[in-house]
Amino acid sequence: MNDLLEQVLQGQIRAIARLITQVENSPAAAEQAIQALYPHTGNAHVVGLTGSPGAGKSTVVNALVKTLRQQEVRVGIIAVDPTSPFTGGALLGDRVRMRDLSGDPGVYIRSMASRGSLGGLARATASVIKVLDAAGFDYVLVETVGAGQAEVEIANAAHTTVVIEAPGMGDEIQSIKAGILEIADILVVNKADRPGADRTVRSLKMMLHLGPVGGTRQSGRISSPAAANPNGSASDGWNIPVLETVATEEKGMDALAEMLVKHMAHLRQSGEWLKREKERSWREVEMLLQQSFMSQFQASVPQDMRDTLLTAVAERKVDPYTAVHQLLEKTESKRKG
Amino acid sequence: MNDLLEQVLQGQIRAIARLITQVENSPAAAEQAIQALYPHTGNAHVVGLTGSPGAGKSTVVNALVKTLRQQEVRVGIIAVDPTSPFTGGALLGDRVRMRDLSGDPGVYIRSMASRGSLGGLARATASVIKVLDAAGFDYVLVETVGAGQAEVEIANAAHTTVVIEAPGMGDEIQSIKAGILEIADILVVNKADRPGADRTVRSLKMMLHLGPVGGTRQSGRISSPAAANPNGSASDGWNIPVLETVATEEKGMDALAEMLVKHMAHLRQSGEWLKREKERSWREVEMLLQQSFMSQFQASVPQDMRDTLLTAVAERKVDPYTAVHQLLEKTESKRKG
Repeated sequence: MNDLLEQVLQGQIRAIARLITQVENSPAAAEQAIQALYPHTGNAHVVGLTGSPGAGKSTVVNALVKTLRQQEVRVGIIAVDPTSPFTGGALLGDRVRMRDLSGDPGVYIRSMASRGSLGGLARATASVIKVLDAAGFDYVLVETVGAGQAEVEIANAAHTTVVIEAPGMGDEIQSIKAGILEIADILVVNKADRPGADRTVRSLKMMLHLGPVGGTRQSGRISSPAAANPNGSASDGWNIPVLETVATEEKGMDALAEMLVKHMAHLRQSGEWLKREKERSWREVEMLLQQSFMSQFQASVPQDMRDTLLTAVAERKVDPYTAVHQLLEKTESKRKG
Repeated sequence: MNDLLEQVLQGQIRAIARLITQVENSPAAAEQAIQALYPHTGNAHVVGLTGSPGAGKSTVVNALVKTLRQQEVRVGIIAVDPTSPFTGGALLGDRVRMRDLSGDPGVYIRSMASRGSLGGLARATASVIKVLDAAGFDYVLVETVGAGQAEVEIANAAHTTVVIEAPGMGDEIQSIKAGILEIADILVVNKADRPGADRTVRSLKMMLHLGPVGGTRQSGRISSPAAANPNGSASDGWNIPVLETVATEEKGMDALAEMLVKHMAHLRQSGEWLKREKERSWREVEMLLQQSFMSQFQASVPQDMRDTLLTAVAERKVDPYTAVHQLLEKTESKRKG
């Protein structure tokens, strides 16, 4: 193992930052680093935090980090902004946070914004989680911008998913509510000192109660062969709590921190931890397989053949399915030849 | 060709609805239908419409459809809601629209919400566009919820992308603005009778002028080998217009409809149309290749081997990269054996 990796395992912040940059920029560097670090992972509690814009998500994350730091645990934060093709959004959130948390050697913050495809971002996030895990952070908080499908895919890497709402989000909340039941392990109503907070809490509790999952979390994550079990998609027996916080005053943070510990204990005792790890492993292996297949494919099909074929598809002379069959035959014959 | 497909080619609404349901539910049905219909596609002008929540996107789409209908063209609408794992959001928008547009045989509306992965949704949207194209709709409008990465990937299927904003969106607009330059062919400031509209128009124009693209649209879509050309990522010479509308009063719709025609003429004359079709073809072929590879893979690796390996990954005994290499060797030896 090289010096940089040794330094990462010792938790040296500068080495961590440098390795993450390498991992983000080069798939080969990511492979090498993750292969070496992987045996040292599996100790961090990975917490995904998401919710509507305006719910005060960043403030909750900040206050939670301060509370966790009082317990002398080390916290890594990954702020993911899949909505920003550039770095605008993510960096902004970062700078605000920096003021509060900078200088604390037990905290490391990293912003990630989408530069290419969503798949690329999900892959990079998974790698950064592993680097922080190996570097000995007790908690890795992954903060995403919305509760949309994109965020769900990224937050899927988490053991515990916290969904943050606020009172009076109006109609917007309607579309989000349905999704909440699918992904939340813990619900937080922030800005709980505002009018209407009680109603929001009540309506969330009612939805949890009335929803298809009957008040307990359903294993509704993206299905995977590894996750299949004789019981089907039965709930795992966790009752989703609805917590109230006022993050600007750091109220309710102890309860949230406690609930994280409680949820991890539940995951371990119920066997759900291994199940989620297997699901996560499957999604990751699947991503890497696709990546590996596409580069094999690109190497085996000559550029001009591909270009000719795509022109034919664009001109409606060949349909996309026939094009795929032709390309696969080409890859196949190259492999055999 | 079977009866259902014949009826779709004749533009029979009931047959179209039935085929779309089949295509959404079965990849095999999608393959069969698209292979047969593909030679009849390529005539529709596919327009992506996106923008911030609250910009009045649905109202703009409604008003635009009414204007287009006065020109006796047929319009298909696909309302995509990638943020809703259930159908809540998309259906809601649909119902409001139904009241206005229902009963018009020249209009067909279809809602699509994410049920599984984003990739699945993008694939299904691409198929539905083709069905509507083959069924003879002159315009296919694809309306998505936000201007995030997810929406960009779905809207990539469009020839013309319209980004809709409104005055006074405050800070939210900041993060969106950057992305706008990447994807918009036409910018619309809706609710232009509200205070601050002038400022929003001015600031958008300034961003277009100051931005990296220097006032003309850059070919900033997801890069593809097919799109590579000796000129690199040069702009295509289209000046992005900023239009003002008041959709509730159907103001500014003629100008928007005219601009769509103008943009299509530009695409045809500049050769950009073929280039975008090739990019679209490449993305589609890539999606199908990945899908095909994954099903080949699933067929060749026994469930118990996969499960054992994923357990080892979850328990940190094998890292994900090594797991991928082992699985690929297995697929390989099966192929040769």
